[in-house]
Amino acid sequence: MSHLIEYEDASDEVRAVYDDIRATRKTEYINNFWKALTNHPPTLQRTWQNVKEVMTVPGELDPLTRELIYIAVSVTNGCQYCISSHTAAGRAKGMDDAIFGELMAIVATANATNRLANGYQIPVDEQFKL
Amino acid sequence: MSHLIEYEDASDEVRAVYDDIRATRKTEYINNFWKALTNHPPTLQRTWQNVKEVMTVPGELDPLTRELIYIAVSVTNGCQYCISSHTAAGRAKGMDDAIFGELMAIVATANATNRLANGYQIPVDEQFKL
Amino acid sequence: MSHLIEYEDASDEVRAVYDDIRATRKTEYINNFWKALTNHPPTLQRTWQNVKEVMTVPGELDPLTRELIYIAVSVTNGCQYCISSHTAAGRAKGMDDAIFGELMAIVATANATNRLANGYQIPVDEQFKL
Amino acid sequence: MSHLIEYEDASDEVRAVYDDIRATRKTEYINNFWKALTNHPPTLQRTWQNVKEVMTVPGELDPLTRELIYIAVSVTNGCQYCISSHTAAGRAKGMDDAIFGELMAIVATANATNRLANGYQIPVDEQFKL
Amino acid sequence: MSHLIEYEDASDEVRAVYDDIRATRKTEYINNFWKALTNHPPTLQRTWQNVKEVMTVPGELDPLTRELIYIAVSVTNGCQYCISSHTAAGRAKGMDDAIFGELMAIVATANATNRLANGYQIPVDEQFKL
Amino acid sequence: MSHLIEYEDASDEVRAVYDDIRATRKTEYINNFWKALTNHPPTLQRTWQNVKEVMTVPGELDPLTRELIYIAVSVTNGCQYCISSHTAAGRAKGMDDAIFGELMAIVATANATNRLANGYQIPVDEQFKL
Repeated sequence: MSHLIEYEDASDEVRAVYDDIRATRKTEYINNFWKALTNHPPTLQRTWQNVKEVMTVPGELDPLTRELIYIAVSVTNGCQYCISSHTAAGRAKGMDDAIFGELMAIVATANATNRLANGYQIPVDEQFKL
Repeated sequence: MSHLIEYEDASDEVRAVYDDIRATRKTEYINNFWKALTNHPPTLQRTWQNVKEVMTVPGELDPLTRELIYIAVSVTNGCQYCISSHTAAGRAKGMDDAIFGELMAIVATANATNRLANGYQIPVDEQFKL
Repeated sequence: MSHLIEYEDASDEVRAVYDDIRATRKTEYINNFWKALTNHPPTLQRTWQNVKEVMTVPGELDPLTRELIYIAVSVTNGCQYCISSHTAAGRAKGMDDAIFGELMAIVATANATNRLANGYQIPVDEQFKL
Repeated sequence: MSHLIEYEDASDEVRAVYDDIRATRKTEYINNFWKALTNHPPTLQRTWQNVKEVMTVPGELDPLTRELIYIAVSVTNGCQYCISSHTAAGRAKGMDDAIFGELMAIVATANATNRLANGYQIPVDEQFKL
Repeated sequence: MSHLIEYEDASDEVRAVYDDIRATRKTEYINNFWKALTNHPPTLQRTWQNVKEVMTVPGELDPLTRELIYIAVSVTNGCQYCISSHTAAGRAKGMDDAIFGELMAIVATANATNRLANGYQIPVDEQFKL
Repeated sequence: MSHLIEYEDASDEVRAVYDDIRATRKTEYINNFWKALTNHPPTLQRTWQNVKEVMTVPGELDPLTRELIYIAVSVTNGCQYCISSHTAAGRAKGMDDAIFGELMAIVATANATNRLANGYQIPVDEQFKL
């Protein structure tokens, strides 16, 4: 288990990231993921920059849809921390039991049909090769 | 590579599935996935029933969002057939280069942070354990 | 793509492995997997030793069941070469379309329920913790 | 962690599924997996229908072999809940330490050779392309 | 398959990335990966920034070791494009058949023991929990 | 959870493996992985033989590099036991926070770009096909 580094014990460069996380997310809470990445500041900075851009810069996809995609990946990979944290984030953005249930049903079905396609060695249809 | 079974060569029970696929999707085209599963009719029937329910029964998620989730799983697993077919389906439902780009950016970032969470062995925050 | 090394071009230590593969499998044919591993003889020797022990030493599981398990793993991982070669091996040991269909149905279902268990973060029942 | 829904607190449609699980498995015990899926009744119903068909409808594969395949997938994916529950199910159907050991040996070897095939980029033999 | 965008057809912001790739790698060649990501310029820019930092900024790990790690991940995931491109990159940085063979042997063994640890549900030793 | 078998309770053939582990690693400590595999002695013997050869026979790669590769695979697969044990082994061989941070950054980036290559269905460059 990684050492979790608190704001008080962090360098100035790390505090700047923590401050940006707080400002971007409009909450004082810094979750353990960032406190752990602080063990390697360049990774903390790069990862936050990526997540911030991908999850918060306005674009085609709304914030809830972005969380659903994040959860779909995390559930497929079986990453417990990411499932927990992004499920919480999704619920904060409006995901209720019905939406979560539909999400899980699609994730489960896709994981199943992915293997049927693998196992039956199905050739890609010509019209899908664009 | 699996033998692909055409409508003309299929049993009545298989033709019923093909008919339902055509009616549900409002297209004559049956893609290779279903023609391959026909090698085991119970799997064809069960899989189509699952996909039909999960992808077409009205619910909280719109059809495009469902395809984005399907693609996110297929890309994470690296299933070439599923990526090809669901990318085509997504485009038919309105996915353009910008939406696809945002989707890929989230999928890539989630796959990265999943491994950072694994590697740093980050404990789940108490407030995420609900 | 790896260079495939033929018997004629192989060292004595590699030829000994090829000879053992032929004797164990009762066929002259050496498939590409072994010809590619020959690029690193210690890996060729160790891998053949492992596969030979695990797949051919008499034990509790019959040869067909062993191939079914091998295919289940390969399909889950999406390894095209392994799916192709072990599907061929399975068919040589009695796997017909019905058995393959049942195998794929279980593999697909297990891949689905694995993700439902991940996503719903289901706690292990006390009685399963033995 | 998901809320687990007990029989007493369930709707009639959910109770019908629980009753069918009990009748099919000939045990009063409902394991946590189903109690969690109850948070989304359509997913509960569909998943039980799939598992019931795939694992209990008489076919070519005996019940123990089906559990071995289920475990092989779950171990490859690293799904803790599924490994625990299907290992228990396997043991109830006759899996002893020797069978489990052979199963694990095949799963481990297949996971290894899958990566050797990937890494060496081995072309599929012509005779495997049927 | 994605449309590959050439330098001549690219916007100024994309050309700046291509120029930086060429300058950093000291070669005129832009490989298909970047030409495909150009379909979504923010993803192109972010991904190049990440790869450049992680693979070229001087640090503790030498360039060849970084490629070996990249290959280990790509082989585990079965990403054909990444295996091909990073195997080429590794060879350009000194990876010969012996090094590649040792790398593959470790990757194969780790993938095997990962599943043995999963399947046997081995508790983490107290002394590893630091 | 598997029964862990101690030296005192082990057969002579198992004790011989435990003795070799101790002699090879120059420590009295036998970690839980081996105590669990003892439930199937052939798997214990084969697995130790593989790990010993791959991780300790002198070759092109130094011991720390071998651990970094092992960790990269284990983190990609999300194997908690293997991450814990090989992180400890890596630290014993000189891995500090900076090296671990660089390793994690590469593993994260590779997992991301693997999915971008999958999703954009990028064709392998001719010059990478050797």
